[in-house]
Amino acid sequence: MMPQELAQLLLNLVKEDAPLGDVTTEAIIGNVEVKAVVLAKEDGYACCLPDFAEALRILGLNANALKRDGGYFNPGESLMMISGNARVILTIERSLLNVLSIILGVVKTTREVVETAHRVNPRVKVAATRKTIPCLRSLIKKAVTVGGADTHRLSLSDAVLIKDNHLAIIGDVEKAVKEARDKATFMHKIEVEVNNIDDAVKAIKAGADAVLIDNVTPIQLRQIISTLESLGLREKAVIEVSGGITPSNITEYAEANPDIISTSYITMKAKPVDISLEITQTTKP
Amino acid sequence: MMPQELAQLLLNLVKEDAPLGDVTTEAIIGNVEVKAVVLAKEDGYACCLPDFAEALRILGLNANALKRDGGYFNPGESLMMISGNARVILTIERSLLNVLSIILGVVKTTREVVETAHRVNPRVKVAATRKTIPCLRSLIKKAVTVGGADTHRLSLSDAVLIKDNHLAIIGDVEKAVKEARDKATFMHKIEVEVNNIDDAVKAIKAGADAVLIDNVTPIQLRQIISTLESLGLREKAVIEVSGGITPSNITEYAEANPDIISTSYITMKAKPVDISLEITQTTKP
Amino acid sequence: MMPQELAQLLLNLVKEDAPLGDVTTEAIIGNVEVKAVVLAKEDGYACCLPDFAEALRILGLNANALKRDGGYFNPGESLMMISGNARVILTIERSLLNVLSIILGVVKTTREVVETAHRVNPRVKVAATRKTIPCLRSLIKKAVTVGGADTHRLSLSDAVLIKDNHLAIIGDVEKAVKEARDKATFMHKIEVEVNNIDDAVKAIKAGADAVLIDNVTPIQLRQIISTLESLGLREKAVIEVSGGITPSNITEYAEANPDIISTSYITMKAKPVDISLEITQTTKP
Amino acid sequence: MMPQELAQLLLNLVKEDAPLGDVTTEAIIGNVEVKAVVLAKEDGYACCLPDFAEALRILGLNANALKRDGGYFNPGESLMMISGNARVILTIERSLLNVLSIILGVVKTTREVVETAHRVNPRVKVAATRKTIPCLRSLIKKAVTVGGADTHRLSLSDAVLIKDNHLAIIGDVEKAVKEARDKATFMHKIEVEVNNIDDAVKAIKAGADAVLIDNVTPIQLRQIISTLESLGLREKAVIEVSGGITPSNITEYAEANPDIISTSYITMKAKPVDISLEITQTTKP
Amino acid sequence: MMPQELAQLLLNLVKEDAPLGDVTTEAIIGNVEVKAVVLAKEDGYACCLPDFAEALRILGLNANALKRDGGYFNPGESLMMISGNARVILTIERSLLNVLSIILGVVKTTREVVETAHRVNPRVKVAATRKTIPCLRSLIKKAVTVGGADTHRLSLSDAVLIKDNHLAIIGDVEKAVKEARDKATFMHKIEVEVNNIDDAVKAIKAGADAVLIDNVTPIQLRQIISTLESLGLREKAVIEVSGGITPSNITEYAEANPDIISTSYITMKAKPVDISLEITQTTKP
Amino acid sequence: MMPQELAQLLLNLVKEDAPLGDVTTEAIIGNVEVKAVVLAKEDGYACCLPDFAEALRILGLNANALKRDGGYFNPGESLMMISGNARVILTIERSLLNVLSIILGVVKTTREVVETAHRVNPRVKVAATRKTIPCLRSLIKKAVTVGGADTHRLSLSDAVLIKDNHLAIIGDVEKAVKEARDKATFMHKIEVEVNNIDDAVKAIKAGADAVLIDNVTPIQLRQIISTLESLGLREKAVIEVSGGITPSNITEYAEANPDIISTSYITMKAKPVDISLEITQTTKP
Repeated sequence: MMPQELAQLLLNLVKEDAPLGDVTTEAIIGNVEVKAVVLAKEDGYACCLPDFAEALRILGLNANALKRDGGYFNPGESLMMISGNARVILTIERSLLNVLSIILGVVKTTREVVETAHRVNPRVKVAATRKTIPCLRSLIKKAVTVGGADTHRLSLSDAVLIKDNHLAIIGDVEKAVKEARDKATFMHKIEVEVNNIDDAVKAIKAGADAVLIDNVTPIQLRQIISTLESLGLREKAVIEVSGGITPSNITEYAEANPDIISTSYITMKAKPVDISLEITQTTKP
Repeated sequence: MMPQELAQLLLNLVKEDAPLGDVTTEAIIGNVEVKAVVLAKEDGYACCLPDFAEALRILGLNANALKRDGGYFNPGESLMMISGNARVILTIERSLLNVLSIILGVVKTTREVVETAHRVNPRVKVAATRKTIPCLRSLIKKAVTVGGADTHRLSLSDAVLIKDNHLAIIGDVEKAVKEARDKATFMHKIEVEVNNIDDAVKAIKAGADAVLIDNVTPIQLRQIISTLESLGLREKAVIEVSGGITPSNITEYAEANPDIISTSYITMKAKPVDISLEITQTTKP
Repeated sequence: MMPQELAQLLLNLVKEDAPLGDVTTEAIIGNVEVKAVVLAKEDGYACCLPDFAEALRILGLNANALKRDGGYFNPGESLMMISGNARVILTIERSLLNVLSIILGVVKTTREVVETAHRVNPRVKVAATRKTIPCLRSLIKKAVTVGGADTHRLSLSDAVLIKDNHLAIIGDVEKAVKEARDKATFMHKIEVEVNNIDDAVKAIKAGADAVLIDNVTPIQLRQIISTLESLGLREKAVIEVSGGITPSNITEYAEANPDIISTSYITMKAKPVDISLEITQTTKP
Repeated sequence: MMPQELAQLLLNLVKEDAPLGDVTTEAIIGNVEVKAVVLAKEDGYACCLPDFAEALRILGLNANALKRDGGYFNPGESLMMISGNARVILTIERSLLNVLSIILGVVKTTREVVETAHRVNPRVKVAATRKTIPCLRSLIKKAVTVGGADTHRLSLSDAVLIKDNHLAIIGDVEKAVKEARDKATFMHKIEVEVNNIDDAVKAIKAGADAVLIDNVTPIQLRQIISTLESLGLREKAVIEVSGGITPSNITEYAEANPDIISTSYITMKAKPVDISLEITQTTKP
Repeated sequence: MMPQELAQLLLNLVKEDAPLGDVTTEAIIGNVEVKAVVLAKEDGYACCLPDFAEALRILGLNANALKRDGGYFNPGESLMMISGNARVILTIERSLLNVLSIILGVVKTTREVVETAHRVNPRVKVAATRKTIPCLRSLIKKAVTVGGADTHRLSLSDAVLIKDNHLAIIGDVEKAVKEARDKATFMHKIEVEVNNIDDAVKAIKAGADAVLIDNVTPIQLRQIISTLESLGLREKAVIEVSGGITPSNITEYAEANPDIISTSYITMKAKPVDISLEITQTTKP
Repeated sequence: MMPQELAQLLLNLVKEDAPLGDVTTEAIIGNVEVKAVVLAKEDGYACCLPDFAEALRILGLNANALKRDGGYFNPGESLMMISGNARVILTIERSLLNVLSIILGVVKTTREVVETAHRVNPRVKVAATRKTIPCLRSLIKKAVTVGGADTHRLSLSDAVLIKDNHLAIIGDVEKAVKEARDKATFMHKIEVEVNNIDDAVKAIKAGADAVLIDNVTPIQLRQIISTLESLGLREKAVIEVSGGITPSNITEYAEANPDIISTSYITMKAKPVDISLEITQTTKP
């Protein structure tokens, strides 16, 4: 996301949060200059702070990021310095914090989930899904990366993923994969969602680059993978598992040794990191 | 939110989720008509379904909501019937589900939190804050209402709330309230954020309509309220408490008997309700 | 309105006024730098000039406001200095002047109307309505404030005002107020539009914060107010009057001593203040 | 303006007037269907009613225009019938009325001004300027036409008009006209603003299609026109006069017999025509 | 592209082509209904006609597509029937034709180029690039598909393509590919642009999915491919060639037997197919 | 086009070309500063380079144009210097080049066509039409000017051009012109499309400012013009010819000596000029 796009996002959020202005600030705050910090109230890992600082500069403030992507911060640490017109800062405050706290939450949760999985299987990759908070796809996917996971498809436009609803219409895994091979660009990978060994085999034989084994138990996953191994198909495609995977069951899936474990937990159930903006100094202009 | 605005939101989300089209659907799904249902995978309470149905109709599909606002649904129940062109349905699917699952999550969590508070104090109101998911303010506030809580300010434009950062600049509660009284419209209420009895007293005496007691323990809250009572000020203003309130401590705050308990927990830590869209029938056009 | 939003508004107006460029300027004006002033051709009171100057800076010009909000200016006085590329200045000229002249007109008319009312009743407040020029709500409400009047509701989102059409549907003042009390947030005030003493009494007894007495004569207003006094209800709610109030009859209403006199005259019948932009100096770049 | 564009304008105005919804209507109005009329409270002439009706249909309501463009209406007459969901109608009401009352005001004032001028000179044309209410250019120019006047340039993109500020930079009428002739497309006319006979002569001799004589008295105008006649230049260009022309002095200018009298009075000082929306019937859906 | 998005595109183009209305149509065309056809003036192959028809329906017209995607049409054949309000049809006419003629041009040119290549090598695929006409990416890529070619990357967001400028910064093919493997999602393919055998070998050994051999002669291409074969690397990656490829030299490249020949010729040098809109019948409403 | 509008266009194109970011650049390019040039790979004439440079500056880069409008450049010459953050430059690269190469193509083709026509008739003007690439109207018309041709109407809003479809509805040239004279503003010219001498005569006698003789052979054109001369009507209106005019037949039309030859060839069949962006230097920030 270009800084100009992020500035535009913040401005849109200000329009949502102050559609006809900030009546409090307009009533009681004069034309003063202030300094402020964005303060962490719990620990976490930084993400996109230089981009937010640049966006704030486009919006007429001074801002400096104090942490690089992935940098750990303790509760009480400052993440960003901001200075400028008090009215502008107070009007942007909540829009900035709402987005940033969500992003930081995704980074932190992603990191925790990835570490949990890696404890039992350092080779497995955790991946996000398209279940993301509306309007923030680009930032959320960046947070997933900073948290150590794989973004998976960014959108419906960048890879073929044949899901249950496609199969409900077409009715046949093999036909679906072949049609996809034929019609999609050579630059896109093709993945198929299956939930049993038969369809997994058909998909791989038809040339799928990846197979998404959905809604299986860890034991079922092991069985499918070992069957694929015995058929010599294990290395022919990336093996991904998904469906109801949470921090409490991810190690069981990781031990079954798929290539990828994808979960919407990291993007949809991450708790926002508590941050606040504190005015630290007021000066007349 | 007018149905046209909701249709526009969904279209914007489709642009985010399929900026250059849905390559899977375009590759393998022909020009067929399908029927589909939005299916609950866990229980919850409905919200805005008729509005979403109307928005889908504006986008060229047939859609019928199956539950009214606040209506309980079991896991496995259908929430909406949708029919129309398969490509359009599959392209909108994730955008629709992402928004709706978040909204339903807010309703469900709000309801749980309100019930928890009401168990010990049926008179207390739970309220939301402006800590909401970006771009969804209007829908989230509606979900808060359906969940049985108070929306609080919708935005910076609809009530005066003098917060810590305002006071950091102005330096004096009394002066701030008086200036607000003077400058703000008579149609807007004035609330002041305080964290001790002295400022609470000053705010009420200066004419604040409400006092937001922030970041106090339940015991401190009791003390402040009883002091206000002894000073004859308890009924002069709405007493609201906020700051770190969660389902696990809300009963302690409720027992202290404020008028309002506000918490961002219901809008920022609500887990999305798991729902899916299932194709139930395919017919050639 | 943030300076970035004002810059965006001006840019949109330029798109309306020069959708495919300024053919005159492109044909005959080279790449020269000029200085210009915004000149008052009649007297008035300044409003938002620093915001417009900042917006012009965002659009690539140099600009300085020469008057503060509310500052009086004589015919012939300069309001703003602008310098920069001649083509940009000439292309923006009319968009800037159209908005600014309207805003200044609202300030001036508001001030005159407020002074007229205060001459007979210094305690009464004059208030605006939602009858404002499209797309300029935020600026118009600011002008109302600078002119010495109350903004009233900024929009449909910031206070409950139960009007004749609501009552035409619900059929009962008391029921309407109670429902509003029950459903609206505690942060919003509730006002009811009535046109007789019975409904005024019902509204106040049901808990309305304000009563808008619409379309009554000054004499009727006096009667309603004195009846409310005799019933001990006068101080229970803000008493507002509206409906056909103009500079020529406002003193009669003011003498009846309501709290608020609201009138769309100040926003819809204000004459724009005549201003122009004059090039004062031309220099080759 | 295509109906879709007008629908978009109304939707944008609803976003301005109800950025986070209509809290009154949401609190107290259920899901009922109503019928309503747009009612004239003073007399006037209709404009664009079928377009507004079509735009309301796009926004999901039923609507029928009851008057054609230019059709006279008495106080108390209905201009449009609207029916549909009560919440949608009440949410759109003010946005619709604000635009429409302004448009109708321009028609009415234009008609009055044109009639005043025609009383003394039936041949003269009255024309509007680019001094129009922001965001409504297209509708305002249509209203000018319906009111019987000439729209003049719609924007900076559709004709060359060399004004005082251009001449302040270029310094020479003749050079300016020649450069314009050379650079502008053959499809655009060229007009020059002058304020004395010398420049008028130069402009016409250099090939201007029209001459705008600005800021002269009626007597000066007569002198300029008679001099042009004596020089045989009167018929070589359209003669337009402007600058401070109002209903009270327009007859004097008309008697001087220019071709065009342009005035911003009809677009910037027109009083909106008082109209209202009245619910006439309520039915459960 | 969803029909709603296409309708929005057409509406935006109407705003560009008639920013303040269609002055001709408004001046002389009354409120009549007409029937019209979109007529081919040269032969070609249809593309997206049902989508355009649906978009026109959203804009308030009746429209029916007369050809399916890829269907051949002769000069003089009708492609679409349109009926409705004459003013709307005449105002949209040029916007519709401009887009459609460009799209049809891409289909026709693509088809010719593909056929030329297939004449000497039926196995080779022709692919488009990101050199497409601004604002029409989605439609252009669809036209490429209908014309029988491969879309290649749709955007910068859907595959990794390491180009000369990336290498100018990083300085090393191997490092670039490895970093990409490490950082990019497993769902995206990785391609590297090279112009000699050494870099091609490095790229494939480092794990590139595809190698884009840029700016080589057909003879150089043969040499590179045969060297890759002798090293056993030919089948390890997709071999694409690009750079200055036109209909007149494409057979030479095709004979060298790469997997993919990509060329911006089909999107940037395609001649629009000549089509027109003809009113066929006029009826009073 | 104001620089801010051009910056907005580029940003929109980046959203089309990198809707969810540039995955290659994000994967492998660090936070480095680079210098780059826009390089011509074939010869041509510059256009709008200072505007593009200013737009890039608004987007946060440094940029300097190296050629003035109309300045000739050889293959291998640099057109613009750009420096700044490598990620931003690489993300904008294609959007910038796609627009600019098209614009330069229009200039070059226009110039060639104009020169071809002037070789046989230096007095004739070549003009563009409204057949332009969508979304680029303003830039394309500028390119036409720089290439030495006349822009003709910029849009449907700036002149009356009565075309075949208008006449199909109205049925009579004379009536159409008279109605246009009556209804259109005096600031707009009136042109009529005809294809025979009878209609040409009617149009001119009815007062058309220009006559567009469409779809005639050069011989027919000569006949029409000589008949108009013999009738004394040749100088009463601008005579324009159009329809199927290309570089190969334009001299024949030019020799027939119309005033204007308009052709969509220069805007719709111009080949983009081949340009590229080359990183010339990389420095750590």
